[in-house]
Amino acid sequence: MSPLGIIAGGGDLPKAIAESAREAGREVFVVALGADAWINAYPHEHASLGEAGKVLKALRSAHCEDVVLAGKLARPKFSDIKLDAKAVLVAPRIIAAARKGDDALLRAVVETFEREGFRTVGAQDAAPGLLAEAGVMGRVKPSGDDEEDIASAFRIVRTLGGLDVGQAAVVCEGLPLAVEAAEGTDAMIARIATLPAHFRGTEKHRKGVLVKAPKPIQDRKTDLPVIGVQTVKNAAVVGLSGIAVEAGGALILGKRAVILEADKLGLFVVGVPHAG
Amino acid sequence: MSPLGIIAGGGDLPKAIAESAREAGREVFVVALGADAWINAYPHEHASLGEAGKVLKALRSAHCEDVVLAGKLARPKFSDIKLDAKAVLVAPRIIAAARKGDDALLRAVVETFEREGFRTVGAQDAAPGLLAEAGVMGRVKPSGDDEEDIASAFRIVRTLGGLDVGQAAVVCEGLPLAVEAAEGTDAMIARIATLPAHFRGTEKHRKGVLVKAPKPIQDRKTDLPVIGVQTVKNAAVVGLSGIAVEAGGALILGKRAVILEADKLGLFVVGVPHAG
Repeated sequence: MSPLGIIAGGGDLPKAIAESAREAGREVFVVALGADAWINAYPHEHASLGEAGKVLKALRSAHCEDVVLAGKLARPKFSDIKLDAKAVLVAPRIIAAARKGDDALLRAVVETFEREGFRTVGAQDAAPGLLAEAGVMGRVKPSGDDEEDIASAFRIVRTLGGLDVGQAAVVCEGLPLAVEAAEGTDAMIARIATLPAHFRGTEKHRKGVLVKAPKPIQDRKTDLPVIGVQTVKNAAVVGLSGIAVEAGGALILGKRAVILEADKLGLFVVGVPHAG
Repeated sequence: MSPLGIIAGGGDLPKAIAESAREAGREVFVVALGADAWINAYPHEHASLGEAGKVLKALRSAHCEDVVLAGKLARPKFSDIKLDAKAVLVAPRIIAAARKGDDALLRAVVETFEREGFRTVGAQDAAPGLLAEAGVMGRVKPSGDDEEDIASAFRIVRTLGGLDVGQAAVVCEGLPLAVEAAEGTDAMIARIATLPAHFRGTEKHRKGVLVKAPKPIQDRKTDLPVIGVQTVKNAAVVGLSGIAVEAGGALILGKRAVILEADKLGLFVVGVPHAG
C-alpha cells in the first residue's frame, strides 16, 4: 500500500489522521502548510499555499498515490500569495471557485490533485476510526426536551449547509440561539454566554444543544465537521446539555477523551443517523 | 377614528409609530412596558408583562379599538412574572406558544388581544411612512458584486426565516460572514470585526452587505425588521458597503437621517422587492 499523503493545515485533525494511519500499519508523508511540531514524527515537507509544484513533486518523490486534505486553513488573500510555475497554471480556476464559497474552493483544490493523477480521499476513509458512530457515547443521555432541540438544530444546520453557510447551530428550548457562519464553532458557542440568562442553561441546570452536521452539498473528500475535547469544554461552560453530531457524518478527535470529559462535566454526546 | 393603542416595548419603533400617527392627526394612547421618557408626550399607562387585565382595561378606558404591538421585549422568564387575574387565564396558552419560538409567542399575544375584541394592526399599517420603499434611497449605488451578495444574503435570510431563526445576514464576496439568531442584528454586525481581515472590507475599501427581511412565516402584525441611523453606523464601522432590506417588508426609522448618514459614510441603502 502506498504511503498516505497528508496535506496538513492547522488544528488537531491532520495529526489524528496520521496517528490513525500509522497505527493501522500504513506509512505517512506529510506536506505541512503550517508549522506544527507533530509533523517531525513523520517524513514531511513544508510548503506554502502558492507552491503547488513543490507539493506535487514532494508527494511523487514519497510515492504517494492517496492524498487527504485536512485541517484548518485561513482563507488566503490571493494577491499576497507567491505562486510557483505550477501554481500560476492552476490559480485562476481556484480563485474563481473561491468566489463561490468555501465548499467550491475546496472542491477546486481536490480536482487539481485528481487531474495530477492522485486519488484524494476523505479523512474518514484514511482514518475511519475518527467517524462518529450512532447512539449515545457516554453515560449521559439526552432528555425529551433535548431530543426536540436536537431535531430542530439538525433542520437548521442542514438547511444552512445547503446554502454553503455553516455546519453548526445551537438550539435551546426550541429557540435558535446561534447559527455558525464564518466565525467557526468555538466563537459561535462562546457567544451563547452573551445572551440574556433566561435564554440559556447554566452549569447547574443545563439546557440547549450544539449540533454539527456536514453540508448536504459538501464533497465528502473535504473535512467533515469535527468535535474534540475542547468542544465539550466550551459547550459545558455556556450551560449546554450536550452535543449531537451526524453519525457517519462527523469526526470525533480523541473519542475516549471526549467521552471521559463529557461524562465528567455531565453532558451527553450522541451520534444521530441522517434519516434523509 | 378611535385612538391608536400602542403596546410599547423598548427601542425607537414605538416612538416613531406614535409620532407618525399624531402627525397624521390620530390620537394615541400608549401602554408602556418599559420606562422610556418619550411616552410622557402622550396619554399613557404603565404596565408589566403579567398585567394583562390592567392593559386591557386601560385600552378600553381610552376608547382604543386598534392596537399595535411594537418594540423590543426581552423574552421573559415566565416563572418570575407576577400575573394579575386576567393574565392567569391567558398565560398557559402564551407560555406554550413561547416554547415554539419568538414568532409563535408573538402570534399568541396578538390572538389574545383579538379575542378581547381589539383589532391588532402592524406598525406598517399604523405608520405606513416607516415602510422601506423599492430602490436606492441615497446617493451611493450597489456595485455588481454588491448585487450578487445582496441576492445571496436574501436567500439565506428567507431560508432561515422559514425556520424561525432570524431576520438578518451578512455576505461578503459570496462568503456568508454572519447569520443572525438570538443575538440580534447589532451584535451580529459587531462580530464581523472579529473575523480575519481578508474576509471583509474596510472603511476605505468597503465590501459586503447587510440584508434584513421578514420571516416568510411571520405574522405581519408583529414587528417587521427595522433599520435606523445606528444600523448604518454599525455597518460602516465593520467595512460593509451597504444595507439592503425588503421593500414593503422592513421599517426604516428616521428615513431622512438614515439616508443622510449613509451618504456621509459612503454606504448604499436599497429596498429590494420580494420577487417570490
